[in-house]
Formats: sequence, structure tokens, C-alpha cells
Amino acid sequence: MNILIVAAYPEAHSLNGALNHFAVGHLQQAGHQVQVSSLYAMKWKSQLDADDSLVPPVGEFYHPSLDSKHAFEQGLQREDIAQEQEKLRWADAVIFQFPLWWFSMPAIMKGWFDRVYAYGFAYGVGEHSETHWGDRYGEGTLAGKRAMLLVTTGGWASHYSLRGINGPIDDILFPIQHGMLFYPGFTVLPPMVIYHTSKMNEQKFAAYCEELAGRLDNLWQTEPVPFRQQNAGDYTIPALTLRPDIAPGKTGFGVHVK
Amino acid sequence: MNILIVAAYPEAHSLNGALNHFAVGHLQQAGHQVQVSSLYAMKWKSQLDADDSLVPPVGEFYHPSLDSKHAFEQGLQREDIAQEQEKLRWADAVIFQFPLWWFSMPAIMKGWFDRVYAYGFAYGVGEHSETHWGDRYGEGTLAGKRAMLLVTTGGWASHYSLRGINGPIDDILFPIQHGMLFYPGFTVLPPMVIYHTSKMNEQKFAAYCEELAGRLDNLWQTEPVPFRQQNAGDYTIPALTLRPDIAPGKTGFGVHVK
Repeated sequence: MNILIVAAYPEAHSLNGALNHFAVGHLQQAGHQVQVSSLYAMKWKSQLDADDSLVPPVGEFYHPSLDSKHAFEQGLQREDIAQEQEKLRWADAVIFQFPLWWFSMPAIMKGWFDRVYAYGFAYGVGEHSETHWGDRYGEGTLAGKRAMLLVTTGGWASHYSLRGINGPIDDILFPIQHGMLFYPGFTVLPPMVIYHTSKMNEQKFAAYCEELAGRLDNLWQTEPVPFRQQNAGDYTIPALTLRPDIAPGKTGFGVHVK
Repeated sequence: MNILIVAAYPEAHSLNGALNHFAVGHLQQAGHQVQVSSLYAMKWKSQLDADDSLVPPVGEFYHPSLDSKHAFEQGLQREDIAQEQEKLRWADAVIFQFPLWWFSMPAIMKGWFDRVYAYGFAYGVGEHSETHWGDRYGEGTLAGKRAMLLVTTGGWASHYSLRGINGPIDDILFPIQHGMLFYPGFTVLPPMVIYHTSKMNEQKFAAYCEELAGRLDNLWQTEPVPFRQQNAGDYTIPALTLRPDIAPGKTGFGVHVK
């Protein structure tokens, strides 16, 4: 299979660098084709702006989504964006690897999503009707591909537990897993999270590598997070609220998981 | 009062540009001192890396938090970081203004938090004991200052409602409001969110300006989001889980709001 790892860590001699090295070797040994987008090493441009199109703004002023649409449709995107989209088309599965900084991904990876997820590629896809509100949340360009987060945190596991002060890790990752991965069509696997990284040692690292190997060996067997598809009947259209008879009276991120 | 607006939008001739212009004028007319950190205009450096310190890494390799700590303590941070910290010290209130991109802030603003929130400034502050786990979540460097998000979205309000497909807006913003603002001490005001921006017109814009004026006029009277303070007795230490007798049996972001 073809596997892309998109990684965001600023120092190769780090836990994330070592995990990345292990993952690449393990996947290659298993016979997979592997590409790595190591965003810091690539000096990835983080900010979405008018320079992301090779032509001047379509309108009088720059408009992020309309100019993204034009550049994508006309093949006028900056080369770095087009290359990442090509890697996504090539991939059967994508691992997104990053340290959790301020309860989200590092800026450089957010900039990967902001820029690579062009209008017409990751959003603004598909038709809108009374029964179908665009190809998104389970449908879209990346449908059929699998995605998994590999996340490290300084905080303790208990701080991210169901009643932990940081909030439950699944809720913290929901805007990423549901909003950035499921949205353009990815099948999302449960994340692998490594907590309390300041207490790492060789023995723990070996155990994490073993866990990671298991996750990588089972990329195609692992049961995905059962997010509800937008256009499969669970949501009213166009309000896109969950039908009243589904999880009646309940609210929050959890209702969007079957 | 001293008010800082940290804003992230790539085009001045835009809804966010117009809102920013209105806010600055309104606050100045009311007699406030205003500073604006318009991150795109400043060409803000988004990615946290070894160049954020004026000296080489303390250890053999770059370590984001340890090198941040050293640079902060020794006055060896890059000047752009030190300047933003100084603006935060100066401010009585801070408005964070951005379009919601992929259910979070634009990369350039995430990079503002990643870099300005140095070790010793926004985290790693205060003592750790059996009754006090650092100055955070309601205590810290920014305690006593107020913060408010001003957010625009392309999506409809119903899509962000309690049962909307994107997830409730309060939950989407929790990692920001609780994790980035309340964490280093800010008193967090309810956000002002403008939905479905593609349908903007002059009449609606005037109404939003009126709403924003009201929010700005009442920055010191508005009731804040009542997040629970970490060290006020509601959490076990050091597990930092909510005490079993508080919101018994409940989980999720909501339990951290009184």
C-alpha cells in the first residue's frame, strides 16, 4: 500500500523524530511504499495568502476561498500545494504526526491543512440539493483512504481523561479528526496518543514502538471511528442538525459518533 | 483602558478588515488606548523553531520548551516574541479576531500562540505542590486581564448549534478559550461569532457593528465564562480530574464550566 506521513516537529533528534524514523522503517520492511512530508524539514510555508496562486486575485481584492477555487480549477496553484495534493491522491493511508501544542497541532501543520485543502479539493466539492449537501463528512475527494493521528503530549493521561482538566482527548481531537479528516472523506482510525513525554526512557520508547508497529500492521483491519455520514439520512438538510429521533435530547461532539 | 487586538486575516479589504477598522475606531472614540497586532500585515513568523532564541540550543539538540524557558528567563528571545509579550503585559483586555478555518484559527495565529506563549510566561509558571499544580487555568501571568474571541465562519449558525454537524461552537472553541486563554490566566468573555459570511450585506454589516460596539462597550461589565479554577478545590491534584462529587457522572468539556 501507499502510505504518506505528514509530520510536524522542529528537531529530528527528538521523540517525534525517533518515532517517525521507526514508522518509516517498519512500513518499508512490511513492503509498503512510504512518502514523508516532514513540514519543518521542507520549510513548509504556513500562512495561506495571495501567493498561493500563480496569478493575481480574480476579483478586485484577494479572497481566500474564491482564489483557491480558481487556482485549483485552472492548475494555477503554487507547486508546493499541488505536490501535497498529489501525495494525498497517491496515498492509501495517511498518518498525521505531531506534538500537541496548546491543545492543537503546531502552526506549520495547521498551515498544511489551510493551504493543501483547496476549494474544489477538500471543500466546495459535490452538488447541493434537498437530500445532499455537498460531498463532505464521509464523502469527498479523499473517500476510501484511511487516516490516523499520532500525537505526543507533555501532559499526563489523567489530565486528558473523561473528567480531566484539559478535556477528554477525543473531544480535543474532534475538530481535527471530524473537521479536517472525516470532512473531505477520510476514514478515521482511533488516534495513537503518547502522554507525559518528559518521562520517556528507552524501555518506554521500546513499548511505544511496539504499540505503533501494531497500529501500522493493522491500518486496514482497525475499526474506524464511526462518525455519522452527513448525507446518509441522520441529518436534516440544509440545517444539518441531527434528526430529533437520533440520540434524542443529547448534544455535544459525541452525538456525531454512532 | 489598554486594549490589544490580535488579528489574523490576509486581506484588509474584507469583512474582517472592516470589523477591525470599526473596532479600533470605536474603542479610540471611547477614550481607550488601542494596539493592533495584525499578523498578516506584520508578516508574523508562524513556526516555532530554534531561531526563536538568540543563542544556540542549551542542550545538544533543540528542545522547544527548554530553549523557550532559557531564552525567556535570560532575555534572549527573538524581538518579535518579546514585543508581543510586552503588548500582553500592557493590555487590560485582548480581542482575538480571526476567520474560523478548518474549525480552528488560521495557522499564522496558532503560530502567535505557539511562539509568544513562552515557557515561564504562559506555561511552566508557579509552584507545584499537593494543593497547587502551577499557576494555570485561572491563575498565571495574564490573570486579571480579559479576553474575547471575535470569529467569522462561512458555515451557518445551525451547523454549529448544539446538535449541528460541525459540533457546538462552544465546544469547537473550548481548546482555544479554555486551553489558550484561561490557561495562562485570562478572564474569558463569551465569544462574538458571525456566521454565514458569504451572505453579508450592508444592512447586516451595520447590525454586526452595532452588536460589536455593544460588546466593546461592555468589556468590563460582561459576565465571563465561568470556567473552574484548577487550584480552587474542584480538581484532585496531581491527577487533575474533577472531584467525583462535582457534576457526578458527567463528562466532556461542559463539566469545566460552573
